[in-house]
Amino acid sequence: MLAVTILGNNSALPAFDRHPTSQVVTLDEHLFLVDCGEGTQMQMAKYRIRRSRIHHVFISHLHGDHYFGLIGLITSMGLLGREHDLHLHAPAPLKEMIDLQLKVADTALPFTLHFHPLAEDGLIVKEEKFAVSCFKVSHRIPCWGFRFEQVKPPRRVNPAKAIEYGVPSSFYDRLKWAENYTTRDGKVIANELVTLEAPKPQSYAYSADTLYDERIVDKVKGVDLLYHETTYLKDLGDRAAKRFHSTTHQAGQIALKAGVSRLLIGHFSSKYEVLHEFEKEVREVFPNSELALEGVTYPA
Amino acid sequence: MLAVTILGNNSALPAFDRHPTSQVVTLDEHLFLVDCGEGTQMQMAKYRIRRSRIHHVFISHLHGDHYFGLIGLITSMGLLGREHDLHLHAPAPLKEMIDLQLKVADTALPFTLHFHPLAEDGLIVKEEKFAVSCFKVSHRIPCWGFRFEQVKPPRRVNPAKAIEYGVPSSFYDRLKWAENYTTRDGKVIANELVTLEAPKPQSYAYSADTLYDERIVDKVKGVDLLYHETTYLKDLGDRAAKRFHSTTHQAGQIALKAGVSRLLIGHFSSKYEVLHEFEKEVREVFPNSELALEGVTYPA
Repeated sequence: MLAVTILGNNSALPAFDRHPTSQVVTLDEHLFLVDCGEGTQMQMAKYRIRRSRIHHVFISHLHGDHYFGLIGLITSMGLLGREHDLHLHAPAPLKEMIDLQLKVADTALPFTLHFHPLAEDGLIVKEEKFAVSCFKVSHRIPCWGFRFEQVKPPRRVNPAKAIEYGVPSSFYDRLKWAENYTTRDGKVIANELVTLEAPKPQSYAYSADTLYDERIVDKVKGVDLLYHETTYLKDLGDRAAKRFHSTTHQAGQIALKAGVSRLLIGHFSSKYEVLHEFEKEVREVFPNSELALEGVTYPA
Repeated sequence: MLAVTILGNNSALPAFDRHPTSQVVTLDEHLFLVDCGEGTQMQMAKYRIRRSRIHHVFISHLHGDHYFGLIGLITSMGLLGREHDLHLHAPAPLKEMIDLQLKVADTALPFTLHFHPLAEDGLIVKEEKFAVSCFKVSHRIPCWGFRFEQVKPPRRVNPAKAIEYGVPSSFYDRLKWAENYTTRDGKVIANELVTLEAPKPQSYAYSADTLYDERIVDKVKGVDLLYHETTYLKDLGDRAAKRFHSTTHQAGQIALKAGVSRLLIGHFSSKYEVLHEFEKEVREVFPNSELALEGVTYPA
């Protein structure tokens, strides 16, 4: 299962009760935090995100609306007694900033914070069940998109067959990962007798803050769900270009060229109080599109 | 008029919809921001605080719950096109942090940010109508309290007399500041004929995060309104001491010894979901006490 939950969908200024950018990507039992604008820890509490399950945080770039909430979240994790490691993937200068903030507060975190500076396009996390890669996008300062992929999705248990062969439900989690079951009397039940093929691995790409840039197409090719920013409606293409942002139609074009299944748009400018025009316009180009709304979870 | 509006009344962790520390002190037409925890700019929007009227910000110390919202507020002021100067009074390392955050974002503020490092007890702002001084308190890292005082409160206009002597209401603001009125035919109306004595100058002290420390008594002596932290109830005196915080009874003792008129308590630990015991306990020592509640304005 791959899905993304939106914690903040607004651009630079908080407005109309919309918050700066933050998302939680759920991949089976793993949670990944993508960007962390001011107030993210409050949004996580509001939407009951279990921060103890977050092991990796990804920060696209160092404009404040994408990371000013990070130090508060890290500090709170420490105050709550977190002990397990946290991996932070972000532009290099963020490390200096966090080190300074902890130093002046005379604070030592009770957990290890591993800092991984973003440097080149390519794989940045590879585990048994998932992989994350990063890619450069076109913004006013160095900025990165991220692609999340299931490496090996779990097989599906066939409960009728499992019961027929006497496999207890406590073993179902292991069946999903292709283990055979051995009965008390030593008989081996082959996994494929009681499970179905795993579904196709799923993927999600977050293209961060960016100009319309066709080099992104290759990076997000064929994903099940693509998030692309749409700071402006289509009539403000010039302003979007000048400020290194995109419009609804441009996001739709990238989705179309990349052959993604579904498009999610966000990072709405504070000049817009209502958002329905965004939905209408993006669907003119790419019908299977949705507005990224706060508190909503979008499956891939 | 001197009053304080509470934007955040909780200690380190946001919890139960209580926010980290921030207050706005109103002194006649001037607004002062005191501490600025994460989310302060959202709280200001919620409670309709006009940030354009803030010219001075005071940060007590560099624990995150007192300043993590500052960079977001400053950045937003810039995005909204603020042009007039902002004065920031804070521990010295905050300047390096803000400079770094603006540099990596490639952001130049459209207004001048004057940084005034806190160094010694004493006067830090002196204008015609008000003065602000700072004083050291006892916390785990360097920490400062602030005292706000009216220097010369406005006289009160006597409308019946003003009408009798033919002073137009458009001149009332100048009457308050002791000007005489000259009629069209050159007759001078002495100010004291149409105004009443100014009330006694008012004062407010914010004693920040601190241990029970009787050296504070002198610094806050006789103020109309004292804010003193009460992170814990009276039964947790040992924990309060260990963490450089105070209890309800300790705050009451300081108020009593300093002979203040009214006491406001806040910075409640996240271990307490409800706060009524705080009110009950502090009034056992100092009856004229109030809980600092978010969104509420307390006149001095």
